[in-house]
Amino acid sequence: MTDINEIRASVLSRIKPTEAEKARLAALSESIILKINTIAEEEGISANAQLVGSSARGTWISGEHDLDIFIMFPPDVERKELEEKGLYIARKVAQDAQGFEERYAEHPYIHAIFDGFEVDLVPAFSVERASEIKSAVDRTPFHNIYVASMIKGLEDEVLLLKQFMKGTGVYGSELKTHGFSGYLVELLVVQYGSFMKVLEASCDWKPGITIDIEKHGSAPHKEPMVVVDPTDPARNVAAALSLDNMCTFIDRACAFLEAPDETYFSANVPEPLSDEEFWNLLAARRTSLIAVELETPDVVEDVLFPQLHKLESSVNEMFERNDFCVYNSSVWASDEKAIVLFELETSRLPLVKKHGGPFVWSKEHALAFKDKYKDSEKFSNVFIRDGKYMVEIPRKYAEAKNLIESQIMNCSLGKHLAISIKKCFNVMENEEILAFKDEEFRKFLGRFFEK
Amino acid sequence: MTDINEIRASVLSRIKPTEAEKARLAALSESIILKINTIAEEEGISANAQLVGSSARGTWISGEHDLDIFIMFPPDVERKELEEKGLYIARKVAQDAQGFEERYAEHPYIHAIFDGFEVDLVPAFSVERASEIKSAVDRTPFHNIYVASMIKGLEDEVLLLKQFMKGTGVYGSELKTHGFSGYLVELLVVQYGSFMKVLEASCDWKPGITIDIEKHGSAPHKEPMVVVDPTDPARNVAAALSLDNMCTFIDRACAFLEAPDETYFSANVPEPLSDEEFWNLLAARRTSLIAVELETPDVVEDVLFPQLHKLESSVNEMFERNDFCVYNSSVWASDEKAIVLFELETSRLPLVKKHGGPFVWSKEHALAFKDKYKDSEKFSNVFIRDGKYMVEIPRKYAEAKNLIESQIMNCSLGKHLAISIKKCFNVMENEEILAFKDEEFRKFLGRFFEK
Repeated sequence: MTDINEIRASVLSRIKPTEAEKARLAALSESIILKINTIAEEEGISANAQLVGSSARGTWISGEHDLDIFIMFPPDVERKELEEKGLYIARKVAQDAQGFEERYAEHPYIHAIFDGFEVDLVPAFSVERASEIKSAVDRTPFHNIYVASMIKGLEDEVLLLKQFMKGTGVYGSELKTHGFSGYLVELLVVQYGSFMKVLEASCDWKPGITIDIEKHGSAPHKEPMVVVDPTDPARNVAAALSLDNMCTFIDRACAFLEAPDETYFSANVPEPLSDEEFWNLLAARRTSLIAVELETPDVVEDVLFPQLHKLESSVNEMFERNDFCVYNSSVWASDEKAIVLFELETSRLPLVKKHGGPFVWSKEHALAFKDKYKDSEKFSNVFIRDGKYMVEIPRKYAEAKNLIESQIMNCSLGKHLAISIKKCFNVMENEEILAFKDEEFRKFLGRFFEK
Repeated sequence: MTDINEIRASVLSRIKPTEAEKARLAALSESIILKINTIAEEEGISANAQLVGSSARGTWISGEHDLDIFIMFPPDVERKELEEKGLYIARKVAQDAQGFEERYAEHPYIHAIFDGFEVDLVPAFSVERASEIKSAVDRTPFHNIYVASMIKGLEDEVLLLKQFMKGTGVYGSELKTHGFSGYLVELLVVQYGSFMKVLEASCDWKPGITIDIEKHGSAPHKEPMVVVDPTDPARNVAAALSLDNMCTFIDRACAFLEAPDETYFSANVPEPLSDEEFWNLLAARRTSLIAVELETPDVVEDVLFPQLHKLESSVNEMFERNDFCVYNSSVWASDEKAIVLFELETSRLPLVKKHGGPFVWSKEHALAFKDKYKDSEKFSNVFIRDGKYMVEIPRKYAEAKNLIESQIMNCSLGKHLAISIKKCFNVMENEEILAFKDEEFRKFLGRFFEK
């Protein structure tokens, strides 16, 4: 199928919520809102509930059973009071849920399961203007109002663009993905007018592209894409979007326009890599793989993934400092285990290492250097190269595995990963990695090689 | 023995020519000069002979049986005539020698063996001033006159400094060594007054040090050491001296002053490396050795060594361009074979190679890149990294040996080595190098590792 209209129709038939689904969601959100308002009234708490997010705007994708319900407090309430009373109400509501837990973003909220829907019950301040918010979540009701006023009739365009981004792996503004948020998708459709027009426009995007629907931008931004928030002139809605996700979108959009195909709307889920495929890949590439395995700390992904990427980059730097050449690296996590994976040119370096000293004419430094290496273990005499002393000494870390095992605690680590690694970690090399049989990890391995 | 006077006496007793040796040399040089002058007169050639160099100045080391005899022509003689008539006389004189051959510097000359002495018979122009020379050799008689006028009483100092430089491996201004010339040694003694004072002064030398005995220097120089020629204000006598030989001299001189020892005056000749030692060194270092063996072209060392070093550096560049990391390299030559030796971090790279493409937003370039790699053999899909397309492809040269075998003719090569390599060359790796059993080469191998 290469006709755009047929593709649109086919994709929409899959992703557009049915009337029955809409009715179920409406009924559930109304009942929760009623409960919140009732509890607030009974307890004499000045708060009222509000449905926000894509479910409030008619831009949610069928099967995406997420509800965001905000418990709004007057702005003059103390933060501590908002947290206590907000959570009190939320917990009380959640008594009727199949299950719930307390989660932490800028302040705490309740995540509960009702009827198969994932419901976030979030206390927030009801401020006058988005520029007066007291906490990041306070902005959401303004987004709601803005989108609701602009999106009428464009809901299908939003659904198609979201699904296209899901299919091409760039949807989601969490710190795990660094992609496009739902609100950003909505604004792109408002700006350009349709799904196809966003795709067409993206073929002319470059880093630095700025979209300012309300023409009120008031601050410079250094991110690759800047979309000024219509409800807050200083904020970049695309701040979380990485250069490479922006580029992936450009690439896929232009390719789709060249040859439209419904497959762009479905994520390419790789098969788990088998032991034999792993062996064959390693032999064909003749590189070395090193995996650091640790226990996943009990934190949300927005806390976990930045720490995993920090670990990834500080180990990368340590490798380069120690003359190991890193080809690729990536991170993976399940609820139990997290893995940081490195592909190296080689995991075994020469046992000898050239060590440079001071200039020959630098007197005290020269003497100190010669003195230091006079009786120490070395491969060569002290010699002179390009006017400087030099000596060949035993390399401290000639095996990559040994380097990580000895030095990982000296890498720059996030708080939770530092605790986890201190407790225990495991470094695996090449075939040893096959001992880790998690199917999702094996899919990740496939993606790691295939890209 | 650590007393300077005892060391001086002991060294001089070895290296100062005996009266008998001096008499033999004087007799030989007088007889050759007489022959030259007689032939010139008989043939009506306006030329006369002159002894130059260290043997003329009393600064030659015992056993160094070299005589430089110049056949001087008036400056208005044509170059062609000088070469023809000069060689005619020289050949005629050499009839009485044990053997002789024609050699080429700026113009041809005769190298002959008389009585165990190596005698160079060199046609030259007898110009008025050193600044008017027509060929580099014409300068030598002026050096003779200058040194003769300054060196009286300092001959032993010159002998000691020469021997110290021989012992520390920095004596000889040929392009094989890039060290100190005999004339440079003499000028240093003239400048500072004694062997010990040169050593003391050198401890304050730095690159850029300039010595101008006659205070008449007239041109800038970029070499690490500048010694203005007392007979030619524009010339740097130390032009051939490399930074590292200058530094080696500084280093050894300062060390000798700290703890004088006669061993400094004897070259450290390493033992030939045995097969077993070679194996042990390779295993201990865990590097890879690659040797390129070729036939030595029939040219003088001043032509051969620059070409070997050019080959060394252009192969080094080729290695780096192809991701091979070079630890050390060096060159060696006998009359029959020449070898350029490389020590690599590894001689086997991964079979996969990351290949970077254009920026994603660069339209035509982006399309062309994706098109090129759509159906070609590759390890990964085209992916995006830092805004650029990238793809993993098979590495063209994953083995160092294979790279040299395929591409050496595309390296920048000197004329004679290019012909030699075109005829035949042989690349050896690690243990294969042991097939080359030349004892001098095995000594060179020892120095290569020990430094």
